[in-house]
Amino acid sequence: MRVDNVKYQTIWLKDRGTVQVIDQRKLPFDFRIVNLKSTEDIYKAIKEMVVRGAPLIGVTASYGIYLALVNASAWDWKGQLKEAMERLKSARPTAINLEFALNQHKERLANIYSLEEARNQARKTADELLEQEKESCRKIGENGLSLIEKIAKEKDSEPVNILTHCNAGWLATIDYGTATAPIYLAHDKGIKLHVWVDETRPRNQGARLTAWELEKHGIPYTVIADNTGGLLMQQGMVDMVITGSDRTAANGDVANKIGTYLKALAANDNDVPFYVAVPLSSIDMNIERGVNGIPIEQRHGDEVKYIDGYDKGNITTILLTPENARVANYGFDVTPAKYVTWLITEKGLCKPNKKEIKKLFRS
Amino acid sequence: MRVDNVKYQTIWLKDRGTVQVIDQRKLPFDFRIVNLKSTEDIYKAIKEMVVRGAPLIGVTASYGIYLALVNASAWDWKGQLKEAMERLKSARPTAINLEFALNQHKERLANIYSLEEARNQARKTADELLEQEKESCRKIGENGLSLIEKIAKEKDSEPVNILTHCNAGWLATIDYGTATAPIYLAHDKGIKLHVWVDETRPRNQGARLTAWELEKHGIPYTVIADNTGGLLMQQGMVDMVITGSDRTAANGDVANKIGTYLKALAANDNDVPFYVAVPLSSIDMNIERGVNGIPIEQRHGDEVKYIDGYDKGNITTILLTPENARVANYGFDVTPAKYVTWLITEKGLCKPNKKEIKKLFRS
Repeated sequence: MRVDNVKYQTIWLKDRGTVQVIDQRKLPFDFRIVNLKSTEDIYKAIKEMVVRGAPLIGVTASYGIYLALVNASAWDWKGQLKEAMERLKSARPTAINLEFALNQHKERLANIYSLEEARNQARKTADELLEQEKESCRKIGENGLSLIEKIAKEKDSEPVNILTHCNAGWLATIDYGTATAPIYLAHDKGIKLHVWVDETRPRNQGARLTAWELEKHGIPYTVIADNTGGLLMQQGMVDMVITGSDRTAANGDVANKIGTYLKALAANDNDVPFYVAVPLSSIDMNIERGVNGIPIEQRHGDEVKYIDGYDKGNITTILLTPENARVANYGFDVTPAKYVTWLITEKGLCKPNKKEIKKLFRS
Repeated sequence: MRVDNVKYQTIWLKDRGTVQVIDQRKLPFDFRIVNLKSTEDIYKAIKEMVVRGAPLIGVTASYGIYLALVNASAWDWKGQLKEAMERLKSARPTAINLEFALNQHKERLANIYSLEEARNQARKTADELLEQEKESCRKIGENGLSLIEKIAKEKDSEPVNILTHCNAGWLATIDYGTATAPIYLAHDKGIKLHVWVDETRPRNQGARLTAWELEKHGIPYTVIADNTGGLLMQQGMVDMVITGSDRTAANGDVANKIGTYLKALAANDNDVPFYVAVPLSSIDMNIERGVNGIPIEQRHGDEVKYIDGYDKGNITTILLTPENARVANYGFDVTPAKYVTWLITEKGLCKPNKKEIKKLFRS
C-alpha cells in the first residue's frame, strides 16, 4: 500500500544480501526502514517485534534461511543451514507460519548438494511464499469488496462507515492486510469510505498501526476509544464492522484480539453486519467449538500497567495504575459464530458453520 | 472510606476558616491534601478538577459560600455573598448539583441580616448537604448489599467477582460512592470480594481512581483493559456488574460513561446480572427514553490522542496516535433498560421501567 504516495510492502529483497523491512516498533512516530543482512538480524527482527503479524513473520523467517545460505561457506553450508533453522524457530516459538516457512525450506533443500543451487532454491521459496501471502490477501480484498460496494450504492454520495478493531492491516501481512484488504480495494476503486479505528488497548495497534496505515494511504479515519463502538452503532454511525481473526474454529467461532466480541454484540444489537476476514490458513478444523475451545493467551501485565507514546521526540513509557496494582492481560476473546454475518476468505464469502467451512477446503 | 487504615472522606472542614480536600488530579501517583481558605480557592478546586463528581462538586461549592462569609466584612457581606455566588456558579456551569447547592444558601440566607448569623446558617447548610449526600450513598450501599450477600452464600468460600466501569466510587461523592457503596459495605461485613476494574479509556478513571480507592481500603481488585469484560463473562469469571449512572431516563434507560453499554450486552449474553446504582437526584423524569433521548457530551479529542501517566516521579503526558490523527471523544453511552437487572437507589431496588421508577418519587 502507499506511504505518502510511494508504494510499499512490509518486506522486500533490496539486493542479493539485504532484506529490508519497516521497523514497526516505532510507528506511527517514526517511519524507518531497517536492513537485515544475516540470519541473526532476521532472528532479532522477529524476536524484538520489528516485524509482527503471522504471515509477515513467516515470510521474514523464510528470507532468513535465504540469507543464511548467502552468507554460508561452501564447505559447511549444510551445518550452517541447520543452525539457522534452529535459531529462527526459537524467535517466536508459537507462530505457526514460522514453522511452516522453515519446514518448506527443509523439504525443498533436502536433496540439493551445491550451495549455489541451494541459494537459488531458497530465494525462490521465500519469493513464492511472499507472493502467495500477498495474493491471498488481495483475494480476500476482492471477495469483501462486494459487501462494501453494496452499501456504497445504498448510501449514494455518503461515505461508507466501517469500524475495525486492532490491526489486521497490511503491516501484519505483506500487503493489503486481511480486514483492511476490502477497504483498500474499495478506496482505490473510488468508493467513499470512512473508518472508525478502535484504539485497541492494551497494545494500541489500532491507534498506532491501523491509523498510520490508513493515513498514509489517504483513507479518512477517526481513532476512538474501544468503549465507543456501541454508541456509534446505536446512533447509526457504523455501516459494517470488519475485523481479522487469529484462529477460527470448525464451527465458525472466531478468536480475535480481545474486545472483538463486545463489538460483535453491539453490531448484533443494532443490526449492523459483522464481517471477519479469515485466510484459510487461520482456520483450525481440529477445534470443534471456539468458545471455551480456543486457548486464550495471557500476556504480561505490564502491557496494561504501562503504555508507550511520544514525548518531545522520544518514545516514552509511563505508568497508568497504582504502582502495585494487580492487572490481568488476556490477548483474545471468542466471538460466537451466530454473531458473524460472513467470513471473508480468499476462496469467497462463507457462512460461519461447519458445513460451509468444510467446503472451502474441498474446492 | 479508609486510606492506609485512616478514615477519610473527600472533603471536610478542618477549622473555622479551612476546608480540606483530596487533590484528585494527582491520584493514584500522589496522595495530597489541599487547604482551601477562600471562595477563590474553592472556585479553582472545582474548575481545575481538584475535586470532581457531581455530589462532591455541590458540597464543595456549598462550603465555598460558607468561606465567603467567614472572610466577609460586616459592612458589605451581602455584596460579597452575591459575588461569591456568581463566581462559584461559573466554575462548572453544567453540574446541576452546584446550582442546587447555591440556591439552597440563597433561600436560607435571604432573611438574615447579621453576618454572624449568616455564617452559622451557611455552615449548617453545607454540613447538612454533606451529611445528606453521605447518607444517600450509604443507603444505596445497604440496598445493594443484599444482592452481593445472596451470591456470596451460593459461592461459599469463593470470592464474589464484581466488574465495575469508570469511577462511581467514594472519590466522586463524599463517602461510599454509588456503584462502590454495596462493595464497601459487603467488604466491611467480611464478605470475600474481588473487583474487576475497567481501565475506562479515555480518561482512565478506573485504572487511576477506582483502583486506588479499592487498594487503599484493602479490597482485592484487578485492573483490566476495557476490552476484557466480555471474555471474563464468557468464562464465568464475573458474578455481577455494578456501574453508576450520570443520568437515567423515565423509562429506565441509563446513560453512563462510554463503554457501559458494551458491558451490559456481554452481561446479557452470559446471564450475568447487571446493576446500576442510581441516586434519585440523577433520574430525569423529563426524558421519556434514554436511547437517542439523553444528550451525549462530546469532549475534547486530546483526551483520546494523549494520555497522562507517571514517569520518574512526574506526571507526564504522551501522544498515542499519529500526530495529525482525527479522533472522536464521546463521553457517555446509553444502556437500554431491558439490559438492566435492577436499579439500586437510596429508596431500595427498583425495576427499570416507568411505573416502578415513578413509585420511588411518591414514597
